Amino acid sequence: ESKESSALRKWIRDVREFAVEDTNRVAFSLKAGLAMLLVSLLVLITAPFEIFGANIIWSILTVAIMFEYTVGATLNRGFNRAVGSFIAGVFAVVVIQITLNSGDKAAPYIIGLSIFLVGAGTSFMKLWPSLVPYEYGFRVILFTYCLIIISSYRMGNPMKTAMDRLYSISIGAVVAVLVNVLIFPIWAGEQLHKELVSSFNTVADSLEECMRNYLRDGESDHRNFSKTVVDEFPDEQALQRCRATLNSSARLDSLANSAKWEPPHGRFTQLFYPWSQYVRVGAVLRHCAYEVMALHGCLHSEIQAPYNLRMAFRSEIVDAAIHAAELLRVLGSDVSNMKHTLRTLTLLKSVHTSTYHLQHSMQLHSYILTPTQLHLLDLTKKPTTNTFSNTLSLGDHEHLSCHDHIMKKQERRLHSWPSIEVDELEEDGGIDTEMIPKMRTLESTTALSLATFTSLLIEFVARLDWLVDAVDELSKLAKFKQEDVGP
Amino acid sequence: ESKESSALRKWIRDVREFAVEDTNRVAFSLKAGLAMLLVSLLVLITAPFEIFGANIIWSILTVAIMFEYTVGATLNRGFNRAVGSFIAGVFAVVVIQITLNSGDKAAPYIIGLSIFLVGAGTSFMKLWPSLVPYEYGFRVILFTYCLIIISSYRMGNPMKTAMDRLYSISIGAVVAVLVNVLIFPIWAGEQLHKELVSSFNTVADSLEECMRNYLRDGESDHRNFSKTVVDEFPDEQALQRCRATLNSSARLDSLANSAKWEPPHGRFTQLFYPWSQYVRVGAVLRHCAYEVMALHGCLHSEIQAPYNLRMAFRSEIVDAAIHAAELLRVLGSDVSNMKHTLRTLTLLKSVHTSTYHLQHSMQLHSYILTPTQLHLLDLTKKPTTNTFSNTLSLGDHEHLSCHDHIMKKQERRLHSWPSIEVDELEEDGGIDTEMIPKMRTLESTTALSLATFTSLLIEFVARLDWLVDAVDELSKLAKFKQEDVGP
Repeated sequence: ESKESSALRKWIRDVREFAVEDTNRVAFSLKAGLAMLLVSLLVLITAPFEIFGANIIWSILTVAIMFEYTVGATLNRGFNRAVGSFIAGVFAVVVIQITLNSGDKAAPYIIGLSIFLVGAGTSFMKLWPSLVPYEYGFRVILFTYCLIIISSYRMGNPMKTAMDRLYSISIGAVVAVLVNVLIFPIWAGEQLHKELVSSFNTVADSLEECMRNYLRDGESDHRNFSKTVVDEFPDEQALQRCRATLNSSARLDSLANSAKWEPPHGRFTQLFYPWSQYVRVGAVLRHCAYEVMALHGCLHSEIQAPYNLRMAFRSEIVDAAIHAAELLRVLGSDVSNMKHTLRTLTLLKSVHTSTYHLQHSMQLHSYILTPTQLHLLDLTKKPTTNTFSNTLSLGDHEHLSCHDHIMKKQERRLHSWPSIEVDELEEDGGIDTEMIPKMRTLESTTALSLATFTSLLIEFVARLDWLVDAVDELSKLAKFKQEDVGP
Repeated sequence: ESKESSALRKWIRDVREFAVEDTNRVAFSLKAGLAMLLVSLLVLITAPFEIFGANIIWSILTVAIMFEYTVGATLNRGFNRAVGSFIAGVFAVVVIQITLNSGDKAAPYIIGLSIFLVGAGTSFMKLWPSLVPYEYGFRVILFTYCLIIISSYRMGNPMKTAMDRLYSISIGAVVAVLVNVLIFPIWAGEQLHKELVSSFNTVADSLEECMRNYLRDGESDHRNFSKTVVDEFPDEQALQRCRATLNSSARLDSLANSAKWEPPHGRFTQLFYPWSQYVRVGAVLRHCAYEVMALHGCLHSEIQAPYNLRMAFRSEIVDAAIHAAELLRVLGSDVSNMKHTLRTLTLLKSVHTSTYHLQHSMQLHSYILTPTQLHLLDLTKKPTTNTFSNTLSLGDHEHLSCHDHIMKKQERRLHSWPSIEVDELEEDGGIDTEMIPKMRTLESTTALSLATFTSLLIEFVARLDWLVDAVDELSKLAKFKQEDVGP
């Protein structure tokens, strides 16, 4: 019995945690209960019941079916229900007129045929891709039509039946909407806003996690693959969330779809707030996250760069990843606070700088660090600094031309690869002394794995430009507050 | 007016195409119409109406709400509806007994409170993650409970109300299920099967497309990025579908969920057919598709390997990609035909061979082809074949040791990297003569872009092992026909 009571206690704790984690859940439940209670009062109290009669149970049904989590979804369902009922009502009245004019004998055949046609027609239409969001509306048309026409056939007075039903449905709809909007409203727009912000943080977290795991001693990392595909494991929680972010496109779409139905509210005071731009930013962010997934692929790939080679480029990789993650977080907090700061531009520059360092370092070592050359140079003798600075300037020169080439391609773009860092790099004499250990490690195709990791990181950074642009566009459309650069 | 009629004609053509594309759509619509017609006959024909009375409209409502596209989804909805109605009925009877015992004055308060509690309780429970699939069931509990208790309060005889409603609901449910299962059944299992097979082909197509676009002359390819994120463009249709495949996890889940409700049918004669393994294979396939997305990223990245460098490795890249795509297609057709052929193993070997060639070729050129070395060697003078074969054998040796290292890691795996190809490669003297043009092109970080592309391709191939395993597992669980290797 103590086992059962401890299981019960655990269950109660779980439920409480679930409720505390997001108090909206409790608010939603209480609101749903309240809305049901309000409509049922129309039956329980004698006075209104005498006015409305038994038809009022349709209000209850309407509330039960229409009450959704967010305001936007409820309004959207209400719209579907209203338009669906209206279409069904009009159609039913037309068919009833036809049956009245065609005599008692023909009536059941006409009604049967019309039910078949409406059933087949609405079912076909709701499969049509652009009509899929209105699936519920077609269902409403179907059953409202059938109910009106059947009750009119057996109970007479079709117009009264139709009207009674419509007004009791609208009472239910009004109660559902009022309770949903006026008491602790849960806005789809707010949810979308938060979800997008948290995606930024998720991608940033998993990028850093990836980088940390890559630079950790590698041998113990080579886990069973099937785990990485399907199950979770403890040290890659951020990546699991990142994967969830990748699969969230449908959720963002539906939230944006609901948010469009909502009136201006809270911080979103603008009419026709650009919710669709949120979906767009989400798409660009997912596009960045694909690169993180590929980086994650490097972690678990069969061919691995040796640990010391990875460590050789440690500081550059750490720099680039940390800066990129910070940029993501700042973008996220900018969206979160609905501000447009110039800090992102500063950060974008420093991301580019550190990426440039990484790229440059890789380039230097693709020049110098091949075993063949070591073979020719005689490894036992340390090369003089002179030789290296020679190569360095050559490298710089070549890289500059390549850089110019990219610059030309990017003329159309606002923030292209910055060129100031070249000078900074030339001042940075520390690189030279670190070159020797790197030389011996880049030996075979395993080194290509490192090149892949860094290239993916660089590509990730390149995509950040587009992300900054998309957020920029959002901040213009949504009229975010413009702010000067912070301290 | 001719404009209108041409628009109408276009619309009719679209609808016809939509219907012809998948005739199940038409079948579903006609079935839905038929089911509605059948239940409405209970009202339209006098004899059954006299038996069942006005309650029969609940059958109509039930059909309209329960009739789903696939058999499994209909059965699932029916289950939710049946269990929901049953729970609501039991609960209602209990509450009615309580109200009867507590006097007329207390009754409305007790009923009101119970409605509030049921409303809040079901709304809270349906947010609980593991109960989300039964969302519809909770809705049914809520409105069935309210309808029973309200009508019992106002119309008396609660047991009769409840029973009448339950049997009319069950008539509707039986009609919906019978029509759905007996007439042109659309099985969720069959859909899942087809969807998985087509995902294999989609990934294969987009891999080949990626490879073709990469090896095409590059300059014109550098399109505006925002297009690649959100919109479609003509020459990457397979990739658009691949992206859709990446987002299809929710759809596969729900199909598998529905398929579990279906009895053995058609080709799937086994009880408890392993539908969840389909989801698993889908997950591994998506894991492969992430690499294709990363390859796609290489196509559009800012830093590109020069065209002639890409062409230098053309044959190896083409070989690896074509073989990998063929393996995917054979796996797909194996699943499609529910056969287990040994062809996949042969193909896996040849994929490994061509990947090995690619890897080896990359490795050779990472040794020899750096400008620094050219600088030292004096570029104007062509190096003798002797030097090259020297380097070649050195490369082989080193690669072998690396290969052994990987072999050790993969001892637990059935199909590890094959070792026979090493001999084949040494026979292949043709490589030497092709080395000169490659030498001059690998000059800067842009070459790393090529390394990334090939590494991603190699990683993709490494993941194919796991895909072959997953399909193997599926073929065992689902008892596919074992077949000897074809011609």
